[in-house]
Amino acid sequence: MQELIFTDDPAAALGRLLRSRTGRVFMLADENTAAFAPSIAGCTPVVVPAGDDNKTLKSARIIWQAMVDGGATRLSTVVNFGGGMISDLGGFAAATFKRGISFINVPTTLLAAVDAAVGGKTGINFAGLKNEIGVFREADAVVISATYFSTLPRAELMSGYAEMVKHSLIADAAGYGRLIAVDPAAIPPSAMLELLRDSVEIKRRIVSADPSERGIRKALNLGHTVGHAFEEFALLKSCPLPHGAAVAHGLLAEMVIANLCLGFPSDELYRYAAWLQANYAPVRFTCDDYPQLLGLMAHDKKNASPDAINFTLLAAPADPRIDCTATLSDITAALDIFRDLLSC
Amino acid sequence: MQELIFTDDPAAALGRLLRSRTGRVFMLADENTAAFAPSIAGCTPVVVPAGDDNKTLKSARIIWQAMVDGGATRLSTVVNFGGGMISDLGGFAAATFKRGISFINVPTTLLAAVDAAVGGKTGINFAGLKNEIGVFREADAVVISATYFSTLPRAELMSGYAEMVKHSLIADAAGYGRLIAVDPAAIPPSAMLELLRDSVEIKRRIVSADPSERGIRKALNLGHTVGHAFEEFALLKSCPLPHGAAVAHGLLAEMVIANLCLGFPSDELYRYAAWLQANYAPVRFTCDDYPQLLGLMAHDKKNASPDAINFTLLAAPADPRIDCTATLSDITAALDIFRDLLSC
Repeated sequence: MQELIFTDDPAAALGRLLRSRTGRVFMLADENTAAFAPSIAGCTPVVVPAGDDNKTLKSARIIWQAMVDGGATRLSTVVNFGGGMISDLGGFAAATFKRGISFINVPTTLLAAVDAAVGGKTGINFAGLKNEIGVFREADAVVISATYFSTLPRAELMSGYAEMVKHSLIADAAGYGRLIAVDPAAIPPSAMLELLRDSVEIKRRIVSADPSERGIRKALNLGHTVGHAFEEFALLKSCPLPHGAAVAHGLLAEMVIANLCLGFPSDELYRYAAWLQANYAPVRFTCDDYPQLLGLMAHDKKNASPDAINFTLLAAPADPRIDCTATLSDITAALDIFRDLLSC
Repeated sequence: MQELIFTDDPAAALGRLLRSRTGRVFMLADENTAAFAPSIAGCTPVVVPAGDDNKTLKSARIIWQAMVDGGATRLSTVVNFGGGMISDLGGFAAATFKRGISFINVPTTLLAAVDAAVGGKTGINFAGLKNEIGVFREADAVVISATYFSTLPRAELMSGYAEMVKHSLIADAAGYGRLIAVDPAAIPPSAMLELLRDSVEIKRRIVSADPSERGIRKALNLGHTVGHAFEEFALLKSCPLPHGAAVAHGLLAEMVIANLCLGFPSDELYRYAAWLQANYAPVRFTCDDYPQLLGLMAHDKKNASPDAINFTLLAAPADPRIDCTATLSDITAALDIFRDLLSC
C-alpha cells in the first residue's frame, strides 16, 4: 500500500522514510530542482537535463548507468525530486531496474503533487509520442508539501489547480464550490496542504479501484480529450498553452458537450465559465479551426471509431459517466457555445 | 490467467489465439528464427539480430519503432517467436509499450520452452550485466511444441533438458527418475510434449505462488548459484560452456553441498553424477581455481553477506529448502568431492 505523506517539513519526512531502508539511495533531480533537493547522508545524486523534451530513453540510460556505477541492488531506492517529468522518468527507470526497485516521489510543483506523482503511471516519450514507453507502478511513498510551491509562477500554480478542480468535479461537489470561490495564489500553505490532501485522496481512491485504466479510472480523463486537443492546437500555432490552462478550457468544452448530451445544468456552465475567464489565459480559435480540433480529438488513443469521440462526461458535478460518445456534430455545436460563453 | 498450449501444430494454435483479437499483430523473430515463423495474415514482421549480445536497448528500440510505424495500439499483440533471447526482449518491449500490451511466446528451443517463455521474467542486458533492465510480466499465452526441437544440436537440447531435470528435482521425485533413465535425443516428439507439460506445470505452479521471487520461487534457482559461476568461469577461460551444461554441473555441486549441510542422500549423489557424466561435456577446473569460483558465487545478486553464500538446497529429491547458507569452507569441501565424483 502506497504511503502518502502530507507535511510542512518534506526533508524530515523523507529522512524518516529512508532511515528504515537498508539499500543505497539515489536522488534524482533535474538541473533546476537539484539546487534545493534535501540533503540525505550517503545518498548518490543523479541529475538529468530539465524539461519534457528530456523525458527520453537517453535520460533513462543516464539514471540506469548511475545506478549500476553506484552499486544499486534490489534493496536500493530512487527518490524522484522534481515535477512530473522527474517522477515519470525516475519512476520508469526504477520500475525497470533489476525488474523493479522502490521509488519515492517528492513533487516540487502543484501539478506533479496532484497529478503525476500519484497513480503509478510512469513513462518516457518515444518517437515524438508522449509517454509511449512506460509501465504502471506506484511509488512506495509520495511526500507532498506545499512549501515548494511558494516560488512557482502563477501560470504553473494554475496548471496544478486545474487538476484539483477536475478532481473535485469528479467526486466532491461541495469541494468544487470551495475551490472556485478563492484566489489560488492567496491560499496559505497550511490550507493548501489540506486541499491537496482531499484532492489526492480522490485520485488515489479512483486509481486503487482501477489501476490499469479499464473502467472508472477513465473518469480522471475528464476535460482532457478536448484539453489535449487545445494544447496540441496551440503548440501547432506556435503559441503554446500551459497544460493546466488547456485542461481548464477542456473542462468547459466538455461541460458544454455534457449539457447537450447528458443535461449537465446550464447554471453550472455559467458559474464555471466565469471562474475560468477570471483565472486562465484564453484559448484562441475560430470556426475555421474546428476540423483541425476535431482531428486532434479523434486522434486520442482511447478512441475506437472515427465518427464519434469518447469522453468522460458529467451529468452534474460529482456525477461522472465514463465511456460516453459524442458525434462530430454535437462537438461542433459545443464549440460554438463554448466560444459564445467566453466571447471568443 | 496465462494460457499454456501444448500442441503438435503450433501455427494452427497461434492462428486460433490471434483470431479472437482485434488489434494488429507484430511477429518478432531473430535472423535465424524468422525463416520458419508461422505465416499470419496481416501481421507485421519484426526481425532483430540473433544472440544474447543483441538482447539490448538498441534491439528494444527497433521493436518499439516498428510498433509505432506499424500503428500499434493498446489492443496490439506481440508474438515472440524464438529462443529465450527473443521472449525476454520481446516481452520487455511489449510490457513497456503504452505501459503494457499483450504478448504471446512461441519458444523454438527446449530451453526457452521450459524456462524463459514461462514465468514473466522479461529483460535486456545493460552495461554488461544480464537482465539488468526488465519487468515482471507474464505472456498472455505460451504455445509450446516439440516440433521445433527436432533440428536442435544435441548440446542445445541438453541445455533445456537440464532445466527439466531441475524442475523434477524440485517437485517430482518419480518424474526425476524417469527423466534420467532415458536418452533425451531419442524421446519422440509426442512423449517430449508430455514431459514438457509436466515440467512447465511445476514452474507455473511455483511462479504463480510467488511471482516476484520473494519466497518459494527461489527454489527455481536450484543448481544456478554454482551453475552461473561455472558458466562465467568457463567464459573467462575462453572455453564457453552451454548454459544447460553449467546448470547440470551446478546441480551436482549443490547436491554435494546439500549432502554436507542437509544430509542429501549419498546414493542419489552417485546416481546423478553417473547420469551427468554420460550426458554433458565436462567442466574443467583445479583447486587453484577455487578462489575465483567462490568469488563468482559470492557475486550473485541474491547474496547479502560476503562470508556465506545463499543457496536453494535439496534435503532429498522433491524436498527443496530455500534461503540456505553454506560457508566458504563447506563449499570448498564440496568442490573437492565434486571433482572426486567426476574424476576431474
